[in-house]
Amino acid sequence: MSASPYKQLEQEFRRLHAFRGALSLLRWDAAVMMPRGSADVRGEQLAALETEHHALLTSPRITRLLDRAQANTQGLADWQVANLREMRRQRDHAIATPVSLISRLAKATSRAESHWLEARQQGRFDLFAPHLEEVVSLVRDKAALLGQALNLAPYDALVDEFSPGVSSTDIDSVFKTLGRRLPGLIREVLAQQEVQPALPLTGKFGAAKQRALAVEIMKAIGFPFDRGRLDESEHPFTEGVPGDIRVTTRFDSADLFSGLLGALHETGHAMYDLGLPAEWRDQPVGRDRGMALEESQSLLLEMLVCRSRAFARYVTPLIVKHFGVSGPEWDTENVYANLVRVRRGLIRVDADELTYPLHVLLRFEIETKLLSGELAVRDLPAAWNAGMEQRLGIRPANDVEGCLQDIHWAVGSFGYFPSYALGGAIAVQLYEGLRTDVANLDEQIAAGDFTGLFGWLRRHVHGVGAKVPVHELLKTATGKPLSAAPFLRYLEGKYLESAPGSTANSAAA
Amino acid sequence: MSASPYKQLEQEFRRLHAFRGALSLLRWDAAVMMPRGSADVRGEQLAALETEHHALLTSPRITRLLDRAQANTQGLADWQVANLREMRRQRDHAIATPVSLISRLAKATSRAESHWLEARQQGRFDLFAPHLEEVVSLVRDKAALLGQALNLAPYDALVDEFSPGVSSTDIDSVFKTLGRRLPGLIREVLAQQEVQPALPLTGKFGAAKQRALAVEIMKAIGFPFDRGRLDESEHPFTEGVPGDIRVTTRFDSADLFSGLLGALHETGHAMYDLGLPAEWRDQPVGRDRGMALEESQSLLLEMLVCRSRAFARYVTPLIVKHFGVSGPEWDTENVYANLVRVRRGLIRVDADELTYPLHVLLRFEIETKLLSGELAVRDLPAAWNAGMEQRLGIRPANDVEGCLQDIHWAVGSFGYFPSYALGGAIAVQLYEGLRTDVANLDEQIAAGDFTGLFGWLRRHVHGVGAKVPVHELLKTATGKPLSAAPFLRYLEGKYLESAPGSTANSAAA
Repeated sequence: MSASPYKQLEQEFRRLHAFRGALSLLRWDAAVMMPRGSADVRGEQLAALETEHHALLTSPRITRLLDRAQANTQGLADWQVANLREMRRQRDHAIATPVSLISRLAKATSRAESHWLEARQQGRFDLFAPHLEEVVSLVRDKAALLGQALNLAPYDALVDEFSPGVSSTDIDSVFKTLGRRLPGLIREVLAQQEVQPALPLTGKFGAAKQRALAVEIMKAIGFPFDRGRLDESEHPFTEGVPGDIRVTTRFDSADLFSGLLGALHETGHAMYDLGLPAEWRDQPVGRDRGMALEESQSLLLEMLVCRSRAFARYVTPLIVKHFGVSGPEWDTENVYANLVRVRRGLIRVDADELTYPLHVLLRFEIETKLLSGELAVRDLPAAWNAGMEQRLGIRPANDVEGCLQDIHWAVGSFGYFPSYALGGAIAVQLYEGLRTDVANLDEQIAAGDFTGLFGWLRRHVHGVGAKVPVHELLKTATGKPLSAAPFLRYLEGKYLESAPGSTANSAAA
Repeated sequence: MSASPYKQLEQEFRRLHAFRGALSLLRWDAAVMMPRGSADVRGEQLAALETEHHALLTSPRITRLLDRAQANTQGLADWQVANLREMRRQRDHAIATPVSLISRLAKATSRAESHWLEARQQGRFDLFAPHLEEVVSLVRDKAALLGQALNLAPYDALVDEFSPGVSSTDIDSVFKTLGRRLPGLIREVLAQQEVQPALPLTGKFGAAKQRALAVEIMKAIGFPFDRGRLDESEHPFTEGVPGDIRVTTRFDSADLFSGLLGALHETGHAMYDLGLPAEWRDQPVGRDRGMALEESQSLLLEMLVCRSRAFARYVTPLIVKHFGVSGPEWDTENVYANLVRVRRGLIRVDADELTYPLHVLLRFEIETKLLSGELAVRDLPAAWNAGMEQRLGIRPANDVEGCLQDIHWAVGSFGYFPSYALGGAIAVQLYEGLRTDVANLDEQIAAGDFTGLFGWLRRHVHGVGAKVPVHELLKTATGKPLSAAPFLRYLEGKYLESAPGSTANSAAA
């Protein structure tokens, strides 16, 4: 072969990218199209492709090529050098966990997931507990091995898989700031809401019309329906690859916004993926820069852009057009009040912008304690309920609306939850920078023009791919390091604004 | 490893089965769900998985295990021995074509397919011709190599890929019998139809109601909607694996039967796949016994079962229920007359039971001549048009309704067409056996009871999988060798019956 080691690696990773795309489609289909009884067949297909992907990525050939390519990077462009680094990162992560452990984890999480479902149906945590214990024990082994290989603390090694370059120091710092201020802030906002309650937006909103509204807005945003789809599924998600990107949501006929904002949240993910550097789309350096940044992009669109007065001005006439509604509750200001209404709730995925971080904080505290052994699985329900009471002032009546609500731990996704809160903090910092550079952003959004928004994001975030670490990306884009202070300032400004019609609804407020 | 070579092979082929299932889903999605602009991305995914599947199947490890397992088959059950034989067959076919030729064929057919589409849009065969020439030349190379490796004549080697155990002697014999009698028979039937014309079934039949009718009938047949789907696509097809089987059709609001019979044709394929021996479902011996038998199962359901008086008695009340129609044209006998109406048409996929074999015969003659070099690609349109005139008495006005109508040659599928005609002959022979064994079959079908039909087929065809060669399967099931004579007798009995209401509509007539 005459191709250079680097070029041969590009070829290998192009193939791995195709495998990942196929796996993504198999997952999409499983959630959206697959008949209920076909889960076992799909499980075998996913396992076969994942095993093969792992074998290819950890093959001696890849290691040899990486060693040779990294021994002499002269003549390589900076994108190529970064690509090599990301290839190595993927390979190192994959090889750090022995195949036998991966296989045991796959079986344990498969069992745990089905018992989690049964435990939810029967409201019995004890049916799930022994299987979660097994998963915790295996994840602990994995974290130790990963940590050794990557020279990171065990929990940091797990986080690093989802959000490269993010450490528990980052997470601790963000959560400390939020944990101190949010409970009080929530009380203040709820008291204020009681004084000035929003008129509820009641009605029966058919799924077909809700879909048409969502599609119209997604088109305005720039979602390419000739290379992507919007479907319905039990929980909203994004799958696929740039070139065939698929988002889902679910429509609730009694709630106009849950389906729309679910779709827009996922559109935020999709727009990130679509904005990744096209010429690197099948290479590791052309991928997203981890889940914290991914979540920042979905939250930025859903929470900062679409739960704003500017968006309320844009969307209200569209709602009138699609549903023929009228009345005082369809005043722009009241629509906005509904978009930013705060509630103490038990369920994370239904939580608003203000209470959401506390849901995540609780999970972060619990999962680190489960892994360290400080908390036993059997004591999880009590710890959960006490944490909810302490943080949000409400207590689950049962474990289904308590510690059984999320699938993450059952499937072994420890280290993922923090991405949600970090994403919120990053989103606000990026939005500050964006508003400085794009002066008339509110007017653009109110007019349904999203080019200023996504032009900036492509330049500073999406188009960078995985070329630089997330901290460097943020610093370059905004001039500032990661911090939770702007997040808090933003939440205070948005939710404690004294009078409707003020301009306090800005990230820089 | 302590597992025997045979057990290790089962493990390897289980993995290959999962790959095939994943590939099938990617193809289904491409035809049913995928956004139009995503074809390039999907092409890369399919190529990556196919390449890997080929590499795994032809790996030295598989060859070594096969050699060891076949060297000593003591202690293996007959199903296991047959499984070994099928494993070897798959491996021998795969390894006979060098990877470089596979890759050149993949690229050439990809180019040819897109130029075939353009040639159809512009009605210009010359845009397609050079690309077809390239494909023909590469397929010729492949046929020669395959033939050498399998000790078969080149064309037979191609047929053997689709229909193992079927030779051009079989094909020649069937086509000779049909080619001699069918043109005259068609003239007689058309003359008779003119004397007793059917009342046309006109109306506007909405897709949702057509779908509901198709689903009701498919459920009666036993199609498992909890492990399968019915969707719409440009051309009807079946994809998936037992456990997740997916059929498609297309609904024409002006034609009540084209969508329904398309769905039932595919349901015939699906029922075959679903009836394969469950305990071997992820092994080569658990697969279908080739495309001739596959087509026999779709034709048996569509043509023999569903274009019958018994089925007309079953379906007419269902049509009345779903569409609320009334009038003399909805008399059972007139519905039947519409189901068996014969027309001289230019398009194969729209052809009726009687003219269909001649469409296939023409293609068989032409493709063997193209491969032998007797016919040059540039002379294809003239040969096609002359053949249509000679066989069916009609002449295409252009190549779009002539030699550009099928995709098969563009994608390199030479040797496939004969399966359609052989399938028809096999279907009739099986149906004769079936009617002998299941005495009240017509009454069952008229009552919407398909258990007798599929009970027999599972026992004699589906459940046999790929355990024995197709000729042996047929002989065991019916006591007779493959022959076109019963096919002709059946067609004459069904289409030349002198008076409506007679019982001549039987395969044994």
